[in-house]
Amino acid sequence: MIEKQFSDLHAIFINCTLEKSPRISHTSRLIDVSKGIMERERISVDEIRLIDHEVPPGPYPDMSEYGWDQDEWPSLFQRVLNADILVLATPIWLGEKSSVAKKLIERLDSMSDKTNEKGQFIYYGKTAGCIITGNEDGVKHSSMGILYSLQHIGYTIPPQADCGWIGEVGPGPSYGDTEYKGKKIDPPKGYDSDFTNKATTFMTYNLMHLAAMLKTRDGYPKYGNSSKSWKEGERWQFRNP
Amino acid sequence: MIEKQFSDLHAIFINCTLEKSPRISHTSRLIDVSKGIMERERISVDEIRLIDHEVPPGPYPDMSEYGWDQDEWPSLFQRVLNADILVLATPIWLGEKSSVAKKLIERLDSMSDKTNEKGQFIYYGKTAGCIITGNEDGVKHSSMGILYSLQHIGYTIPPQADCGWIGEVGPGPSYGDTEYKGKKIDPPKGYDSDFTNKATTFMTYNLMHLAAMLKTRDGYPKYGNSSKSWKEGERWQFRNP
Amino acid sequence: MIEKQFSDLHAIFINCTLEKSPRISHTSRLIDVSKGIMERERISVDEIRLIDHEVPPGPYPDMSEYGWDQDEWPSLFQRVLNADILVLATPIWLGEKSSVAKKLIERLDSMSDKTNEKGQFIYYGKTAGCIITGNEDGVKHSSMGILYSLQHIGYTIPPQADCGWIGEVGPGPSYGDTEYKGKKIDPPKGYDSDFTNKATTFMTYNLMHLAAMLKTRDGYPKYGNSSKSWKEGERWQFRNP
Amino acid sequence: MIEKQFSDLHAIFINCTLEKSPRISHTSRLIDVSKGIMERERISVDEIRLIDHEVPPGPYPDMSEYGWDQDEWPSLFQRVLNADILVLATPIWLGEKSSVAKKLIERLDSMSDKTNEKGQFIYYGKTAGCIITGNEDGVKHSSMGILYSLQHIGYTIPPQADCGWIGEVGPGPSYGDTEYKGKKIDPPKGYDSDFTNKATTFMTYNLMHLAAMLKTRDGYPKYGNSSKSWKEGERWQFRNP
Repeated sequence: MIEKQFSDLHAIFINCTLEKSPRISHTSRLIDVSKGIMERERISVDEIRLIDHEVPPGPYPDMSEYGWDQDEWPSLFQRVLNADILVLATPIWLGEKSSVAKKLIERLDSMSDKTNEKGQFIYYGKTAGCIITGNEDGVKHSSMGILYSLQHIGYTIPPQADCGWIGEVGPGPSYGDTEYKGKKIDPPKGYDSDFTNKATTFMTYNLMHLAAMLKTRDGYPKYGNSSKSWKEGERWQFRNP
Repeated sequence: MIEKQFSDLHAIFINCTLEKSPRISHTSRLIDVSKGIMERERISVDEIRLIDHEVPPGPYPDMSEYGWDQDEWPSLFQRVLNADILVLATPIWLGEKSSVAKKLIERLDSMSDKTNEKGQFIYYGKTAGCIITGNEDGVKHSSMGILYSLQHIGYTIPPQADCGWIGEVGPGPSYGDTEYKGKKIDPPKGYDSDFTNKATTFMTYNLMHLAAMLKTRDGYPKYGNSSKSWKEGERWQFRNP
Repeated sequence: MIEKQFSDLHAIFINCTLEKSPRISHTSRLIDVSKGIMERERISVDEIRLIDHEVPPGPYPDMSEYGWDQDEWPSLFQRVLNADILVLATPIWLGEKSSVAKKLIERLDSMSDKTNEKGQFIYYGKTAGCIITGNEDGVKHSSMGILYSLQHIGYTIPPQADCGWIGEVGPGPSYGDTEYKGKKIDPPKGYDSDFTNKATTFMTYNLMHLAAMLKTRDGYPKYGNSSKSWKEGERWQFRNP
Repeated sequence: MIEKQFSDLHAIFINCTLEKSPRISHTSRLIDVSKGIMERERISVDEIRLIDHEVPPGPYPDMSEYGWDQDEWPSLFQRVLNADILVLATPIWLGEKSSVAKKLIERLDSMSDKTNEKGQFIYYGKTAGCIITGNEDGVKHSSMGILYSLQHIGYTIPPQADCGWIGEVGPGPSYGDTEYKGKKIDPPKGYDSDFTNKATTFMTYNLMHLAAMLKTRDGYPKYGNSSKSWKEGERWQFRNP
C-alpha cells in the first residue's frame, strides 16, 4: 500500500560538509540512514556533496556572469527542481551550519524569483527537511535557519523535519566514529541513539507523506498565492488595512 | 468553490504583545489583516492576547501544581487544540521575539508529550505561521525561532508562512502609526507596504490551503511517525546504521 | 597580589530558571561554581532568582505605570547597577534561552536610555558573561542572543564569556543530577566535565580581569561615545559619508 | 591627547561581500566611514575583501593540505594577527550573514588552538566589532553570530560593537545607492541616517579605547585563563563542584 503511495516520488540530499571527497563526512553517515528508508520505500534518491562541485557563493542564478570562471549551480539546480523532497544536511561549526550550507541557501534563494505555471514561487509543492551532525551543540540552531530559509522560498515543512546527532558539551567523537583518543567505540558513536534514530525516521516518513499528498493534489491551488496574479492586481479577499 | 473548501476550518491567532489591554498593540493591527481575509473566506477565527491572561512561564502543563497561584493555560490550550491553524504573532524587542512569545512556546512544548489517537504528537495535522511587527530589524530572526519550534512539536509549515512589517534601521514609527514626532503619517505607517500586504495575504491563503488539505486527509497516516508504535518496537523501513 | 586587584569589585548573578524557589534549579549549580571562584577571590557577590520576584515583562522602566499591579524591577535594577560584573544564567528550552531570560533582557534594555555622568549609556564600564545549562543542545545559541544584547546596551564582553553544560542529543539527565531513570550517577552529571569546568573558570577570571581594568580606568573616556555630546552636535573624527 | 593614545594601534577590516572586485560592495561604503575615523585618529588600517582571495572553507589552518589546490588563508591570518582591532563586515542574505562571513569565522576558529606566550588563546588582548549592511532586516541577527564567535575564540567586545544600515521591510535601495527604480536618491541612501552614523562612530571609538587599554596593559594577565596552565593542572580558585 505504501509503495504505491510513495513510489513516484523523487528526493535529493545535499551534503554541506566541509570535507571534499574522498575524505570522510560524518554527516553522510546520517544521510545514509534517511536515504536507506526512502530507498526501501522505493523512492528514487539523488545526492550531491556540494563541496565537490565548483559552485561560487553569490546571489545570482549563474555566477559565471559575475566574475567567476565556472559555476556548476545551474545544472545542479535542475536536480533540485527534479526532486519533490529536499534534505539539506550540514555539520556544525561553532554552533552554526557550515559556510557551504549558507552558500547553498544563497544559491537556492537566487532562483526564487522563478515561478511555476501557476505564477507561484518555483519551490511550491515541494517539501524539505534537514539533517545536522556535530560533536557538540547546535542541531536546533542550525535547523532554525535552514528550515526558515526553505519555507521562505516556497518549500513546505512537515512535522518534526529536523534530525541530527551531537554529543555532550566539549570536544568528543563525532557521529559514527569507532575510536576516540585511542579508545574503541562500539557500536559506532550515536548509532544506538534511540532519539536520533527515531527523529530521523519520523522526519523521513513525514517528508514522504507530505510530498505524496502535495503531488496528488498537484501542489497548492493558485488562489491567494500567485505572484503573477498579485502583480496583475488580483487581491482575493485581502483588503487594505 | 473556495468557501466550500475552507468553511469548516478553525483558526486561532495568539498575540504576544507586551502591552496589556486596552493599551494599543501594533501587532494586533497586522493580525487584523490576516484575520480579515480568513473571516471573509468564512473561517471561524479565535484570538488570544496572552498577556491579558494569568499564564506563568514554565515547562509543565499546569504550573499551578508547581508553586503558582493560578494558571489559565490548560483552558487556553483547549482553544489551541480546537484550531486547525495557529498564527503566533509577536512584536520585536532587541531583534528577537517577545518574552511572551517565548513563554507561549514553552507552554505549547509542555503539551507535546500528548498524542492523538494514532499515537502521533498532538499537533500533527495542524498548520502554523507567524506575524512579526517592530519599528526596526528582526522579522526573519523572530520567525526562525517561532516556525522552528512549531514544526518541531508537530505543526506543518506551509510556504512563505512568515510575514511582518518593520521600518528602516533605528527608532521610528511602528506599524499603523498615524503620527511620529509630531508629524502626521497618512496612510498609517506600513499600511501601503506592497511587500507586507502580499506576504500577509500569501501566508494566510497557504495556511488555509494546507489546513484544508490535511483536514480532508485526516492529517498524516501513522505509518512511520507514531511515537506509540515506535515505543512498541515498530521500525517500518528504518534499519540500524 | 590578585586579591588587591579584585577585592573592590562587585558581581551579580541573575538566575533565569523557570523553577520557583524552593524547587531545584540545575542552573544554580553551575552558578555556584563561578560564584565560588569569585568569593574565594574576595569579590562581593549578589544573586537574584528572577522568577521569585514580581517582575512583569515589558519595555518600560516601571511596568506598574502600565497596568500591572506590582513591579519589583526598579529595586532589582539598583542591584544590577551596583555591580561591575553581570552574569546572566539561563536554562535551555527548545534550544533557546528561557522566557525569563528574555524578560530580563527586555527590562535591562528598558533602562538603556539612562546615561552616566559622561553621557554614556548607563552600563558602560561594566562587564558581562553568561552561564547556560540544559540536558541537550543550545549553549551557543542561547549565549549569542544574551551576549549580543548585553554588549548592545553597553556592557563589555571579555574573551570566552560563555560557559555551560549540556548532555548528548535527546532527553537525559541535567547538570548535577545524581540519578536518571533509576540509575545512580556519580559524580553528579557534568561535575567532572573538564570542558565545562575550564570554560567556567576562564569566563569567571576574564570577567574579573576586565572589570578590574575598566574600574581602574574609570570606564571608557567619553571621547567618541557620549550620547549627550552627539546630541549636542559633537562628531569627533566622524565625517559624513 | 587622543592621537598619542591611539597612534600605535593597528586595525583590520575584512569585507565579506559576495561581490568580487571591481564590482560594487555596498558594505565597503560603511566600512569607509569607520575606517575614515580611524585614519583621522592616526591608526594604521588594513583591509581585505575576502572573496578576492583563494580561501577555501574548512576547519583546518591550511586547506591546501586537505585536497584544495590553493589556500591564501595562512598569509591573510598574519595580517589578522598583526591587528589589535578586527572589524568583520558583511552583507545580509535571507536575514543572515553571508556565506563568506561564515567561512571567515570557520578559518579564524581553525587557528584558535594556537596560544600566545602566556598560554592564552591567540586572539586574547584584541578587540572586535562588526558592520552589517543590507536592503532589509538582519543587522542584529547577523551581529549576534559574529560577535559571539569572535568573543568565543578570544576577542574582547566593547560596548555597542555592532553597527549597520538596513531599509524598511521588502526590496529596496541598498546603502549608498543614488538611484532606485529610476528615481534619484540624494543624499545617497542611508548616508544621512543619524542612527547609523552614530552607531558606527561609537563602535569605532569604543574599539579604539578598548584596544588602547588592553595594549597598555599587555592584554590579560594569565592568571585564571591560560590553557597551558590548565593543562598542567593549575586550577587557581576553581574548586570541583
